[in-house]
Amino acid sequence: MIKMFQYNWMVREEWFTWCEQVSTEELLRTRIGGAGSILYTLYHIADVECSWIRSIQGMPDIPENYASCRTLEQVRAISADRINETKKFLHTWSDAFDTEIVTASWMKDPFTKGEILRHVIAHGIHHTGQLSIWARELGLQPVSANFIGRGLF
Amino acid sequence: MIKMFQYNWMVREEWFTWCEQVSTEELLRTRIGGAGSILYTLYHIADVECSWIRSIQGMPDIPENYASCRTLEQVRAISADRINETKKFLHTWSDAFDTEIVTASWMKDPFTKGEILRHVIAHGIHHTGQLSIWARELGLQPVSANFIGRGLF
Repeated sequence: MIKMFQYNWMVREEWFTWCEQVSTEELLRTRIGGAGSILYTLYHIADVECSWIRSIQGMPDIPENYASCRTLEQVRAISADRINETKKFLHTWSDAFDTEIVTASWMKDPFTKGEILRHVIAHGIHHTGQLSIWARELGLQPVSANFIGRGLF
Repeated sequence: MIKMFQYNWMVREEWFTWCEQVSTEELLRTRIGGAGSILYTLYHIADVECSWIRSIQGMPDIPENYASCRTLEQVRAISADRINETKKFLHTWSDAFDTEIVTASWMKDPFTKGEILRHVIAHGIHHTGQLSIWARELGLQPVSANFIGRGLF
């Protein structure tokens, strides 16, 4: 399961690099569907991932601070910070956690840690798939979504 | 990992139901990015999933037959058939397969079975995320991409 996180992080980093060729105006432009803009999608993926992984650990959520970081560099830095935090936790992951139950501070219903882990993986891939539609709308080649060929095994 | 397949199948079935409200013309309409149309995306996800899972088993690929099945009902039936086949195989899955190497008939490079399994999961989620952009472009609510709350744990 950790390899799916590594895949998401690798793809996200490639999207940050991809964004370097796009103007800030296009990165911030409101688009139909998904999280609403290219830059906010990347922020949202990083933010949601970290929030859920913190909830598994019983840690407080980090309040959303997108309004104060509307550049590619800022979002990339936030993402890197959150990945580092998540990485440390995932090194402690054991399959026994799968069935342990937690309730995130922003949710009513409890979920198992295994359910949350998979939710976060799917959430990242889901929104990244949306970025590739917007890339094509801009006439640009999207980042590859392939898991194979990344040296993850 | 099997739960990620169950998630993909559940979400795909919800997309087939979602499609019932959309005209065949819209389902077949060529769109920018992704696999190109809503119906072909659903076919492509089912087709690619089954092809890779067959490759893991050393079975021959099923040639793409989308041209002969351009209705929702036909694609849905093909998807159900392929899911049944994949489901049987996944019941035999063991973590020891993760590092076993196979070469799919349409690829030059070999990959581990674990890499292929994760590739198929990510491929399905990636393309399904794209459907939800197109749903919003049609003014419709997309199927939820949530893994949580589906009773998968």
